[in-house]
Amino acid sequence: MFYEKYLKATNEKGSFININLDPALPKQRSSNVVPDKYTSKEDAQALLDFSLDIIEQVSDYCCSIKPNTQYFLGHTEILKKIAKKTHDEGMLAILDHKLSDIGSTNGSAMFWIREMGFDAFTFSPFAGNTQKTVEKAHENNLGVIVLTLMSNPEAEKMMLDATVNGRPYYLHTAKTVKETQADGCVVGLTCFVEDKYIKNIQESVGDKVIFLLQGIGPQGGSANKIRYVTNPLVSLGRAVIYSDDPKDAVEQYHQIFKKYL
Amino acid sequence: MFYEKYLKATNEKGSFININLDPALPKQRSSNVVPDKYTSKEDAQALLDFSLDIIEQVSDYCCSIKPNTQYFLGHTEILKKIAKKTHDEGMLAILDHKLSDIGSTNGSAMFWIREMGFDAFTFSPFAGNTQKTVEKAHENNLGVIVLTLMSNPEAEKMMLDATVNGRPYYLHTAKTVKETQADGCVVGLTCFVEDKYIKNIQESVGDKVIFLLQGIGPQGGSANKIRYVTNPLVSLGRAVIYSDDPKDAVEQYHQIFKKYL
Repeated sequence: MFYEKYLKATNEKGSFININLDPALPKQRSSNVVPDKYTSKEDAQALLDFSLDIIEQVSDYCCSIKPNTQYFLGHTEILKKIAKKTHDEGMLAILDHKLSDIGSTNGSAMFWIREMGFDAFTFSPFAGNTQKTVEKAHENNLGVIVLTLMSNPEAEKMMLDATVNGRPYYLHTAKTVKETQADGCVVGLTCFVEDKYIKNIQESVGDKVIFLLQGIGPQGGSANKIRYVTNPLVSLGRAVIYSDDPKDAVEQYHQIFKKYL
Repeated sequence: MFYEKYLKATNEKGSFININLDPALPKQRSSNVVPDKYTSKEDAQALLDFSLDIIEQVSDYCCSIKPNTQYFLGHTEILKKIAKKTHDEGMLAILDHKLSDIGSTNGSAMFWIREMGFDAFTFSPFAGNTQKTVEKAHENNLGVIVLTLMSNPEAEKMMLDATVNGRPYYLHTAKTVKETQADGCVVGLTCFVEDKYIKNIQESVGDKVIFLLQGIGPQGGSANKIRYVTNPLVSLGRAVIYSDDPKDAVEQYHQIFKKYL
């Protein structure tokens, strides 16, 4: 089960840091891009070499690596090598995929996610089929991490004010996480997300669910909020992967976070 | 704009049929799979050769081809060739992607979707960022087709009973489609989806929005429902692509549908 893998990896690494591996090429945007030394190669090779280097550099202080499908969309064939390198370095491989399909299409997604070697994936509860997805995922030895409360400004209306069965949408999702025995929930910590919402989610899901926390650090979320959850997995992204010295950057966060271990 | 492309393609082909190009390999599941004659090859080659053959066979009676990312997840590099073949045959290429991310991650998805040559993609309104996504997509000359009312059984609770600002979730989405000038909406026609819901959506979105209709034919949706919408794009999937004679199968549907043109 993914929860046991999480306990093992956090214990062995002495860290609950997850790295968002989201490499953009210079032709995609103007800042936060893969450095020049990689980009003389073909796109796929540039993305792969950069990714493998990052994985190696952060491995002492991280327990998981989470590439987002949207950064590899034309070149998903390299994700298999990224998952393998992640495992070779003793970390868990999570695909940030926000799976939003139904039925046999979700089955196909899980086939390929397992084929690529990932341990877990993120899932959107929008279509209401969390139960079926979790069952199928667990048959395939995959963990499911459910988008529960995002913290982009627009999510306030869609996940906090919106209702399902008369209760706030995010709490319906949290209840579903508990009932379906999903493995984790994604919670953003910036903008409108108050401490009480995090506490509400923790109370709803029980103490064996992993909290994939987004937005701590440069995006403004306070590390203090980590103490509200039992099983944190704290994501860091651009502040590490685009740093001149990723290893040093992640070590500095590790020093801040370790008191919450 | 995608709407003009839609008008041109439907006019030139004399058809509003879209093909869901969702090829599964025999190792993925037991039925509805790519035929044996393709599968002695490497996975990517099998998926590509099957896809190109289907595109050619259906091209006389279809105006668009819609591969779903989840069926190509380990091999997205071949989607570029699929989009090119689709264009070579005079049809539009839509990526069924259900994009559910935010900010720069959506930007990365759109970069790759355009790079692969697609005309439009499907989008989930779950995170509330439809406005930003449509703006960015239109800058990139991409159409956005928003998941508005799915018809899997669980969607009844999540899209019909759930509320945003006190109104049914699907009608909030329809209103958003109109306000953001998104290009289309995905509407499922099976299970709980009554005719009045389709009419409600049509009334909300205005007459320049494309309805990507799912579930007609073998899945049980009645072709009669097509008459409720101004700009239909009617999806057919396994009944065509896994038919012994895809060209003949799609022609038979064309005979049924053409009276709604």
